[in-house]
Amino acid sequence: MKLAVIKGDGIGREVIPAAVEVLDAFGLELEKVPLELGYARWKSTGTAMSEEDIETIKSCDAVLFGAVTTVPDPSYKSVLLTIRKELDLYANIRPVKPLPGIVGVTGRNDFDFIIIRENTEGLYSGIEEIGPDFSWTKRVVTRKGSERIAEFACELAKKRSNKLTIVHKSNVLKSDKLFLDVCRQTADAYGVEYGDMLVDSMAYSLMMHPEKYDVVVTTNLFGDILSDMCAALVGSLGLVPSANIGKKYAFFEPVHGSAPDIAGKGVSNPIAAILCVKMLLEWMGKPEALLIDDAIACVLQKKIITPDLGGGASTAEVGHKVAKYV
Amino acid sequence: MKLAVIKGDGIGREVIPAAVEVLDAFGLELEKVPLELGYARWKSTGTAMSEEDIETIKSCDAVLFGAVTTVPDPSYKSVLLTIRKELDLYANIRPVKPLPGIVGVTGRNDFDFIIIRENTEGLYSGIEEIGPDFSWTKRVVTRKGSERIAEFACELAKKRSNKLTIVHKSNVLKSDKLFLDVCRQTADAYGVEYGDMLVDSMAYSLMMHPEKYDVVVTTNLFGDILSDMCAALVGSLGLVPSANIGKKYAFFEPVHGSAPDIAGKGVSNPIAAILCVKMLLEWMGKPEALLIDDAIACVLQKKIITPDLGGGASTAEVGHKVAKYV
Ligand SMILES: CC(C)[C@H](C(=O)O)[C@@H](O)C(=O)O
Ligand SMILES: CC(C)[C@H](C(=O)O)[C@@H](O)C(=O)O
Repeated sequence: MKLAVIKGDGIGREVIPAAVEVLDAFGLELEKVPLELGYARWKSTGTAMSEEDIETIKSCDAVLFGAVTTVPDPSYKSVLLTIRKELDLYANIRPVKPLPGIVGVTGRNDFDFIIIRENTEGLYSGIEEIGPDFSWTKRVVTRKGSERIAEFACELAKKRSNKLTIVHKSNVLKSDKLFLDVCRQTADAYGVEYGDMLVDSMAYSLMMHPEKYDVVVTTNLFGDILSDMCAALVGSLGLVPSANIGKKYAFFEPVHGSAPDIAGKGVSNPIAAILCVKMLLEWMGKPEALLIDDAIACVLQKKIITPDLGGGASTAEVGHKVAKYV
Repeated sequence: MKLAVIKGDGIGREVIPAAVEVLDAFGLELEKVPLELGYARWKSTGTAMSEEDIETIKSCDAVLFGAVTTVPDPSYKSVLLTIRKELDLYANIRPVKPLPGIVGVTGRNDFDFIIIRENTEGLYSGIEEIGPDFSWTKRVVTRKGSERIAEFACELAKKRSNKLTIVHKSNVLKSDKLFLDVCRQTADAYGVEYGDMLVDSMAYSLMMHPEKYDVVVTTNLFGDILSDMCAALVGSLGLVPSANIGKKYAFFEPVHGSAPDIAGKGVSNPIAAILCVKMLLEWMGKPEALLIDDAIACVLQKKIITPDLGGGASTAEVGHKVAKYV
């Protein structure tokens, strides 16, 4: 097993070392392949990631990724989007689950759902035209793309409560009807119960009734927006991990970005990145992944927490303690 | 002054009569032109709205609109979208402000901001192709469209705290850079202070720090999603109004839809529709618009509230009482 380790930019450089310390505590046989990629490298060399880097990543089985700063500059190709594409990581999995003793903006902790975000098409098609007075981007929905994400979501629903919510905007985007229809057909074929929601209503409903949902499947940018919003339910963007999964590779990244505003101070919350390690272990089929939950519960209970949660601990201290408990 | 009154479908049929009762209480000289449009009519006659209806609407100055059910059926043309287009209602204004004594999911009431949603382009371009295996919709950004919404937002910011937040996703949609650039240039020209946020971060930040924002400007579908989400901050979709404004016409509609699940029971909350009347009066330049705030405060204090707010009052009762206090 080979794991590419990419710290990237900003707080990615702080949270990944903490997460790696936790991973190391498991003493698994696993070769780590560090890679330096991202915006900082683009600024100094003109390349954020080379062909060779991509080959190196492809020679690994999985990737642990911090964050990379993105900019609107049309000549800057997003590292994250390139890797998602190159490794065909079509399913972006974002669990939304409270952590012990921490409540988010709504004060409740009676929810536990997972957003499955289609990760290769929709508004991320890259098909666009930029003009001085007129610009456009094509939002693409394909049967193949919808099918494989629907199947992924249904497989997951089968392992959980057998319930699926399909999120779309097909009252306005008639093209989204293809996504909706394929998801419905797939759920029927799998014998999964389902309902569907318009994305605007869903944004509201997730805030009002998060306990209603279990597995949620949606298109690329809707998943992006909803999952960030749901971090407020959990309490902090610093607490939510994600996995990007393909048929061959898996890629783990905290939902938070590079957070330039707090980067370099050593106060970023490493829990999201540590939960990425948990998702990695689960993907590897290691039941000991669950130890991470217990270890995190311990540090939270002892109030070894970073400033975003109202504490005074550093990134490294939290990583250290979680590793110790593991 | 001529006002088209469109109840539409579902709870639109309940909340509009309540809102009209409040409007009537002001005893203004104003001709009301009732129109029957929507999904129910489409089902029975095959037309949701005729050319003639559009002409009638265009002969009015403003529209008070309930809700119309929309369906993914490609042959069903959305009434709402058609009217927005026909009347060139380019600015969708959605105030997010707590009502006295009511708190939303976050329990806080220290916010007061307005989402200005571009209302004519973006993913609502209507440029799409539907196939069995491949479908797409074009997300369009134009300089002209961005300019007029940016100007609208800046005019408003000038009357408020002179602060603007531009919401976009230009790190992925390079076409959104046009929107961002135009908004920045316009804000510079107006001398309005501004910042910008990625739409995913903004969804999170609005839940975590709603007090930070004042005037928010964004593209069509982002505004749709964020404004529905923000109804959870206020406490109920039944409390948030909106205005769709053009150079010539104005159109007022509650943000909630037709809500088929509760329609027909007479329990829908008319406050959003009543706040639409307030926005109408403001648009007409009537300072007495503010009386509506006081009247609503009275019914809320007396707990004359509908079930969505935990009360037992009917739609008609609430409308009645607000009208009486006015
Ligand atoms: C950084 C950006 C390209 C990315 C996305 O939009 O997918 C991020 O927001 C995410 O959710 O992983
Ligand atoms: C009903 C629908 C077409 C509409 C929209 O998407 O604009 C609604 O959600 C709104 O926000 O007014």
